[in-house]
Amino acid sequence: MKRVAVIGYSGNPHLFSLSLKELCIEIGKELGKKYIVYTGGRDGVMELVSKGVKEVGGVSLGILPFEEDGNKYVTHQIQTGLDFQMRSFILVKNVDVVVSIGGEIGTAIEILGAYSNRKPVILMSGTGGWTDRIQKVLIEGKYLDNRKLAVVYKATSILEMLKILEKTIGE
Amino acid sequence: MKRVAVIGYSGNPHLFSLSLKELCIEIGKELGKKYIVYTGGRDGVMELVSKGVKEVGGVSLGILPFEEDGNKYVTHQIQTGLDFQMRSFILVKNVDVVVSIGGEIGTAIEILGAYSNRKPVILMSGTGGWTDRIQKVLIEGKYLDNRKLAVVYKATSILEMLKILEKTIGE
Amino acid sequence: MKRVAVIGYSGNPHLFSLSLKELCIEIGKELGKKYIVYTGGRDGVMELVSKGVKEVGGVSLGILPFEEDGNKYVTHQIQTGLDFQMRSFILVKNVDVVVSIGGEIGTAIEILGAYSNRKPVILMSGTGGWTDRIQKVLIEGKYLDNRKLAVVYKATSILEMLKILEKTIGE
Amino acid sequence: MKRVAVIGYSGNPHLFSLSLKELCIEIGKELGKKYIVYTGGRDGVMELVSKGVKEVGGVSLGILPFEEDGNKYVTHQIQTGLDFQMRSFILVKNVDVVVSIGGEIGTAIEILGAYSNRKPVILMSGTGGWTDRIQKVLIEGKYLDNRKLAVVYKATSILEMLKILEKTIGE
Repeated sequence: MKRVAVIGYSGNPHLFSLSLKELCIEIGKELGKKYIVYTGGRDGVMELVSKGVKEVGGVSLGILPFEEDGNKYVTHQIQTGLDFQMRSFILVKNVDVVVSIGGEIGTAIEILGAYSNRKPVILMSGTGGWTDRIQKVLIEGKYLDNRKLAVVYKATSILEMLKILEKTIGE
Repeated sequence: MKRVAVIGYSGNPHLFSLSLKELCIEIGKELGKKYIVYTGGRDGVMELVSKGVKEVGGVSLGILPFEEDGNKYVTHQIQTGLDFQMRSFILVKNVDVVVSIGGEIGTAIEILGAYSNRKPVILMSGTGGWTDRIQKVLIEGKYLDNRKLAVVYKATSILEMLKILEKTIGE
Repeated sequence: MKRVAVIGYSGNPHLFSLSLKELCIEIGKELGKKYIVYTGGRDGVMELVSKGVKEVGGVSLGILPFEEDGNKYVTHQIQTGLDFQMRSFILVKNVDVVVSIGGEIGTAIEILGAYSNRKPVILMSGTGGWTDRIQKVLIEGKYLDNRKLAVVYKATSILEMLKILEKTIGE
Repeated sequence: MKRVAVIGYSGNPHLFSLSLKELCIEIGKELGKKYIVYTGGRDGVMELVSKGVKEVGGVSLGILPFEEDGNKYVTHQIQTGLDFQMRSFILVKNVDVVVSIGGEIGTAIEILGAYSNRKPVILMSGTGGWTDRIQKVLIEGKYLDNRKLAVVYKATSILEMLKILEKTIGE
């Protein structure tokens, strides 16, 4: 099975807007049917996506900083002993594609980290934060530097995200 | 579910003695029924243990160096991007107990790494390598330094190993 | 003594424009008089800055990936055994301020990594690459996310850079 | 200049015996005249060795865990952001030879880590802890596993240590 990471906002998921909450859970459900899902294992987007994965009986792995415990929905947790950012590089190395939802600086580092590790990124357009901000600095609308290491895609719906996944890594 | 790591000899498992091969597979089967099994994800003991885990429908996770692919029996693989030894510290951090079978210098580092992370170690006595060698330098027959961070146990059979596991981490 | 990192373009420094070459060497000279200078230890900006530091009898440390040797101008080299990006986080953790000159994706990760570790960044405006690109996505002209972890400054000359350094970390 | 690491007991150096204190300072002085000295940057043996290095105007680098500050005698400090053990692997990777004085589990991991990275180790015999304990398990009196990756030497005096250094890495 192919492996897909979902990255994005951390924080208390109960404070998320209803539409953001639903988007995350729905993405978890769709990805959980076909792929192994990797997240940073913590709260926010990570928790809601793993919740969705669990609802469809899929598998999600949480790649955690230090010796933190993962959220209650991860199937398996990996405690890296590394700080937040270094552990993010283990997360992106492990997957075929990265899907990004909103997010602050940690998400930005993961988007760039994915690209530098030649992993395609799918930005869920309209979710705010760095997922939208990074779109302003894309080269030729799809690269993050002149080396063109990987393609950065934009998706405006889950359906579109699934089509890009199918195209790039197959079912 | 509790988590148990198995460490030990790497190398081509077809070159292992029949009794060592059987021991590893049997340990994988027994652990796979009750615990999540973690290994270094590569060949040798790691491969045979994951084979045993798979035979009973259990789950094994391989914590791999660099971006290496795991052996064909691991349920999930985690590529750490780290070298052999640094990745060993992620392995031991993730589990409740470590079981050791023979092994060269990498195994020795994992035994000491487990102890320094306050994880109990069960040495499968008679399997050679560092699993037997380390027994010569135990303090009071069970510690690896004067800080007494964790207990190092010896088991001469799988049954004894299972009893120690039950005693230390429950079923 | 305070510690300052310089990050930016890698590659053959002989292929750099004369003005870029001179900027890097001059920055090395100015920083080398007052601060310990940290770089990624490799070629490009890293090499030219260390050359400048050496010319004034200063000290530069190169924080290297894997077990690579540093360029011939670093005073001391530190081989981290980590890949390019993970080692970048050791680089930014070690300094009080980061100065950025041009740069591709690795530089972008270092700018964000510095900010996420609450280190001020001075962008040498007009040097191209991510040093200029990142300016398009600053929040309130100086932050990289809503948490406002550190200030991102812009300098259009070495003199301006030195003034910002004086203001933020003293001489 | 060649690079030599000194590893060993941590803890308050004022509680060390007079002879151990003098040994560490003297080793620092002798190494500081000819080599760049690397330590773990903290207290105990690390501090006393750096004190000796400083007394002769030499250079010592402290490779520190997390974002800890080094002892007051280190010339330069490197904060790795990594935990105690992972940072030890950066320490041993950076040097040509490792000298060991006493030590608890962290020192044991560094001795094995040096050997696994093919670095010769000089055990200062009679200093207790793992420096003496490891001698009980050497294969053919000088190896730490069957792969014979590097030689483990024993020295009973500073003079002997210096001769081994001269023989293995030159002056």
